[in-house]
Amino acid sequence: MTDRLAATLAAVAGLGPLDRAAMAEAQAKLDQLTKPPGSLGRLEDLVVRLAGITGRADAPLDRRRIVVLAGDHGVTARGVSAYPPAVTPMMVSNFVAGGAAINVLARQVGARLTVVDVGVAADIPATGRGRGGGRLVRARVANGTADLSVGPAMTELQTRRAIDVGLRTVERFTRRGVDVIGIGEMGIGNTTAAAALVAALTDEPAELVTGRGTGVDDDAWDRKVAVVARAVERHRRTADTGPLATLADVGGLEIAGLVGVILGAVAARIPVVLDGYITGAAALVAEALAPGLAPRLLAGHRSVEPGHRIVLERLDLDPILDLELRLGEGTGAALAMGVLASAVAIRDGMATFASAGVPDRE
Amino acid sequence: MTDRLAATLAAVAGLGPLDRAAMAEAQAKLDQLTKPPGSLGRLEDLVVRLAGITGRADAPLDRRRIVVLAGDHGVTARGVSAYPPAVTPMMVSNFVAGGAAINVLARQVGARLTVVDVGVAADIPATGRGRGGGRLVRARVANGTADLSVGPAMTELQTRRAIDVGLRTVERFTRRGVDVIGIGEMGIGNTTAAAALVAALTDEPAELVTGRGTGVDDDAWDRKVAVVARAVERHRRTADTGPLATLADVGGLEIAGLVGVILGAVAARIPVVLDGYITGAAALVAEALAPGLAPRLLAGHRSVEPGHRIVLERLDLDPILDLELRLGEGTGAALAMGVLASAVAIRDGMATFASAGVPDRE
Repeated sequence: MTDRLAATLAAVAGLGPLDRAAMAEAQAKLDQLTKPPGSLGRLEDLVVRLAGITGRADAPLDRRRIVVLAGDHGVTARGVSAYPPAVTPMMVSNFVAGGAAINVLARQVGARLTVVDVGVAADIPATGRGRGGGRLVRARVANGTADLSVGPAMTELQTRRAIDVGLRTVERFTRRGVDVIGIGEMGIGNTTAAAALVAALTDEPAELVTGRGTGVDDDAWDRKVAVVARAVERHRRTADTGPLATLADVGGLEIAGLVGVILGAVAARIPVVLDGYITGAAALVAEALAPGLAPRLLAGHRSVEPGHRIVLERLDLDPILDLELRLGEGTGAALAMGVLASAVAIRDGMATFASAGVPDRE
Repeated sequence: MTDRLAATLAAVAGLGPLDRAAMAEAQAKLDQLTKPPGSLGRLEDLVVRLAGITGRADAPLDRRRIVVLAGDHGVTARGVSAYPPAVTPMMVSNFVAGGAAINVLARQVGARLTVVDVGVAADIPATGRGRGGGRLVRARVANGTADLSVGPAMTELQTRRAIDVGLRTVERFTRRGVDVIGIGEMGIGNTTAAAALVAALTDEPAELVTGRGTGVDDDAWDRKVAVVARAVERHRRTADTGPLATLADVGGLEIAGLVGVILGAVAARIPVVLDGYITGAAALVAEALAPGLAPRLLAGHRSVEPGHRIVLERLDLDPILDLELRLGEGTGAALAMGVLASAVAIRDGMATFASAGVPDRE
């Protein structure tokens, strides 16, 4: 499995910059359509970016996938979340049954949903797969992480195996055909892990990268900040603070899985739509592992988590939406995929000045 | 027709504030769904706002309409636009043929498109109605407006007739069944009229409310600012500066039509999704005619026109999207309608904590 990660990193390094020729071709196509040049703003940018990522001016967007990676966090023992860890397996069950927000939004945008158990700590309650329910992939590396406030969340082996789960998920998608992947996560406690990762990778103080998660009160937020600060301090005393070591030390199993999905999709030139803070933290790790990768990602939205703004700035990504979301599950990615679909429909569905007989600029 | 406007204004005045009971019921419904309370941010706000506007916690959003009102502007003689006025009728033709951006985006969101000629200055080139093409309503009040830089754009009678066209459009929609109306416009020169209207209604200086429209260069922008300033000065010297007189003096036929659509829809408790700067200027007029109406409107997006920010602040409306659009045609309204549809799908499609057996907060 180490081979798969090494091969993927080599493939990403070999991609070079975005495909300028495809981008110019896409822009030229847009400029012939019956509208003032540039007047569709970000929709036009998205069409051009899509061309740069895929190398195709007419990149299709028909086969849409959303993948939600799930894992649990030992740090929940520190009272950092408003919900008990038992919610993680129950919500995975809910994703399969079709009753969660991401099920609704994936249906809306015509995306197939896959849910991957990378490291849930308890059994997933059995449930029938409901209308619009996700397909469950059982790929558990461990029953949750260890408490990152006192020691490493994962071993290096666990971390590599979790990344591998993400890489293999993309391989499966690629075999079946995929044009775009939206990513999301589920894991009670994972905004704490994301905050620790972001603090460790950016040197920002714990207070600035720690938010309310699912909605903790002031006392719990104070605890959460202290936990994040302690974890980062502990991590700085370890011998190896390279990106993989940082991910293992203060990350999470589903976050490592997300790193794998991001790297795998980028290597395969498949556009990835990020969701909120946790997927952003995973993208930060991916960028640290494969510098220069970030322009190949699309930021679905800006979440209300304060650290997310920092992550997006570091990655130099403009979010497509800003709807004050803080749910996760890939909900912001699914909503943004709708805007992306509109951008592609514009590219493919409009008349040109010539075909419509409309006079161009004077 | 004066009776129709008077009756509509009376109906709007009789509505009172948003329906608090319906809003509380909608919020209670949202709080039972399997997600942390409030975690879907603006999507939840939209569900609650929809309840307040319609008086129904379960307000449907199935029958979607987009209406584009078209008119020409005598002020184009002053060189304020990057495109010749001949583009207005050609684009109306394009809307009917199905080749414009709004056709594509209306199709994407499953909305029927209606195009109303309120005051185009030349014949609409005949065209077959294409796939996704709009239905053309011929309701021309005049062949464009007079040059607002030297005298009134419209007579009071023309203004009232154009408003009446908008009111009757909503009546037609209501008879056929409608759950939401997105509004847009087409009219070369109409960002100049919108800027003059906004300056006259808000007392903001011409430089702050005048933008680049379809993309004028610096020289044309200077001319445009001078034209707007002159029109507002001229208007301030007239006897009557009430909202209707201002609309007649420096507005436009399609803008007056939009005022009618807004008033008619609000009176009928139908949610209206605004587009960009021109529809915003119309909303400002509607709010001046029927103070307190603004919370019943939804701002689809924030355009790059600098004056649009001022309009949204005056109306105290938060735009749903911010995609740097400046096309008009209702494109931002159509895109935002997609977000609104997602919000309603969330409301109606998710499991509750009880039905999914997911534990709630600790």
